[in-house]
Amino acid sequence: MEFRLEHTDGLARAGSIMTHHGLIPTPIFMPVGTQGAVKAVEPRELEEIGARIILGNTYHLYLRPGRDIIERAGGLHGFIGWRRPILTDSGGYQVFSLSDLRGIEEEGVTFKSHLDGSSHTFSPERVVEIQRVLGSDIMMVLDECNPYPCDEAYAFRSHALTLRWAGRCQNRMAQTSPAYGANQSLFAIVQGSTYPAIREQSARALVAMDFEGYAIGGLSVGEPAELMYMMTGLCTAILPASKPRYLMGVGTPENILEAIARGVDMFDCVMPTRNGRNAVLFTRRGKLNMRNAVHTADLGPVDPDCTCYTCRSFSRAYLRHLFKAGEILALQLASIHNLAFYLWLVRSAREAIAERRFAAWKDSLLAALAAEPVISIP
Amino acid sequence: MEFRLEHTDGLARAGSIMTHHGLIPTPIFMPVGTQGAVKAVEPRELEEIGARIILGNTYHLYLRPGRDIIERAGGLHGFIGWRRPILTDSGGYQVFSLSDLRGIEEEGVTFKSHLDGSSHTFSPERVVEIQRVLGSDIMMVLDECNPYPCDEAYAFRSHALTLRWAGRCQNRMAQTSPAYGANQSLFAIVQGSTYPAIREQSARALVAMDFEGYAIGGLSVGEPAELMYMMTGLCTAILPASKPRYLMGVGTPENILEAIARGVDMFDCVMPTRNGRNAVLFTRRGKLNMRNAVHTADLGPVDPDCTCYTCRSFSRAYLRHLFKAGEILALQLASIHNLAFYLWLVRSAREAIAERRFAAWKDSLLAALAAEPVISIP
Repeated sequence: MEFRLEHTDGLARAGSIMTHHGLIPTPIFMPVGTQGAVKAVEPRELEEIGARIILGNTYHLYLRPGRDIIERAGGLHGFIGWRRPILTDSGGYQVFSLSDLRGIEEEGVTFKSHLDGSSHTFSPERVVEIQRVLGSDIMMVLDECNPYPCDEAYAFRSHALTLRWAGRCQNRMAQTSPAYGANQSLFAIVQGSTYPAIREQSARALVAMDFEGYAIGGLSVGEPAELMYMMTGLCTAILPASKPRYLMGVGTPENILEAIARGVDMFDCVMPTRNGRNAVLFTRRGKLNMRNAVHTADLGPVDPDCTCYTCRSFSRAYLRHLFKAGEILALQLASIHNLAFYLWLVRSAREAIAERRFAAWKDSLLAALAAEPVISIP
Repeated sequence: MEFRLEHTDGLARAGSIMTHHGLIPTPIFMPVGTQGAVKAVEPRELEEIGARIILGNTYHLYLRPGRDIIERAGGLHGFIGWRRPILTDSGGYQVFSLSDLRGIEEEGVTFKSHLDGSSHTFSPERVVEIQRVLGSDIMMVLDECNPYPCDEAYAFRSHALTLRWAGRCQNRMAQTSPAYGANQSLFAIVQGSTYPAIREQSARALVAMDFEGYAIGGLSVGEPAELMYMMTGLCTAILPASKPRYLMGVGTPENILEAIARGVDMFDCVMPTRNGRNAVLFTRRGKLNMRNAVHTADLGPVDPDCTCYTCRSFSRAYLRHLFKAGEILALQLASIHNLAFYLWLVRSAREAIAERRFAAWKDSLLAALAAEPVISIP
């Protein structure tokens, strides 16, 4: 993997990540395909709307379908039919949030599967080995993600454990090779809850270990947005300019713009697909709830400035009808549009940074996004 | 509308129906879009797999979203974003099967909506007027569809009513014009349950009234397949060679082949999409249940002879994983494939008829379809 920083505008950055499976322009939003599928969206549709990299989840894919079949398929790319880059989360977050957690020890974490109750252990070495089998372009270290709020003493001990685990992941990474001949990179994860001193210590220690990229984890877990922005800025001030920076699980369009302004390059979030399935559609002029009666006779597109299949082909009235009628097509069209919107957002941010007009563009877009939704009935 | 009979091979026919929205080669299978959407399949995907005409349902669309918004959109084509021909069922079948039926009178049928309990009346004139607003290329008369088994005296009285209603539909058709300048045709529906004498009488009376096409209704409602075939053959022997023939709600691939052999031109059925959503996939060598463990490590396509997106891009193992994981993408990929299979079936039948090898092709395909499903693990 190679990261090239191409433009800066204030703290905002535009760059490119070169991987075996293709180039990722940054800032980038990564659609979430937890179980090896982005919900209700086909891989060819992801390509069509400009997705350059998608996420998979080690915890989920390890439990189902399991490593054997993915290995037989030549890795996750082959198994799911996605040719472009893939980032896999280590599964640490899911072990803590989904499974029946049985114990966090120095060695690793023991849990029972949320699917069948079977017992498993994830050690730092094991999650590297599993991600070798998945064949993801970007792998994540095993970390402990703290809830919010979190006791300071616990947050400190937890960060120290995450740090030791990061070192063990790095060691196992060096001892192993890509399973399918395609280069894989390992990103570290800065933790430290909302404590500036712990965040700084975490970031400095990981930087000293020289990872290929750095994620900021443990945010967007319920803390106020201002705290998220503060922690993010504090981390990016320490992280090296020459490595990509990934803010995990974030967030709203507003969150993403503020994080780009603080020097973040990569994002993932289930919000565009989950909101879409709940009939909430993002537009350049605020969110729309497609179930609202106001859309009943609105023959205009969801977002007149959007070029996605949904906006090119269908009206708000038809989308509302599909949601009211319980048609699966509603979920498909809404998910396509919301992902297209998020990808437009990061593409436009990149252009604005390259042209050194990011701050003004961001302020004007934030004002538009916060406005009352525009109703398009003629 | 113009129907051109191009080839015959025994009783099997190949032809073309010319409509304002395009040509329909026959035999044809019509994907079902009851509520203005084919479940889990996008209009562009229907075009890709070769769908030439889809179905809409007058009962459903009248209740939701209602005529006003469809009229404002310039008809159903504009509302749902489908440029090719549409056939709308009159809704008679749904009034009897879905609604809280309040009475069948000479004048029409009174029912309460299955959605909100509101009261409505469908008369023969009214369903023509509604279908004028829908703007479908092919409209259906209001009929009474008998259950199976059905008392002979009831079946006779019912057929007589359906006949009088057909006449009233035809009259109202003559008194009204297409709402959007695009020619619309009206098809009659032969009824008579499984009583040959009533079926013959129904068919002869409708033929004498000179409709633009003829449907055979009231079959595939639980009767043995042999009875269905017998009734079908009895009707097609009476229906004029110069008009298209539509066997409503049929059926399995085997049913369709047998009906084509008896001179039927058009089919519709929810089976490919409904079975697909239930993980049952059709192949040229029998059906597969994608949830079965035998597919766990099968990296071959669902049907190696199929050229659809699903078969070109994904393995049986991945489809099984998607179904097991509850991913919406499973429903999309299965529905695309099953509809592609049905459309391949009728296209291949058409070619075989044109080359006068239909009987041999049909026998060989029937044998393959009835075989044990072929497992493709290497």
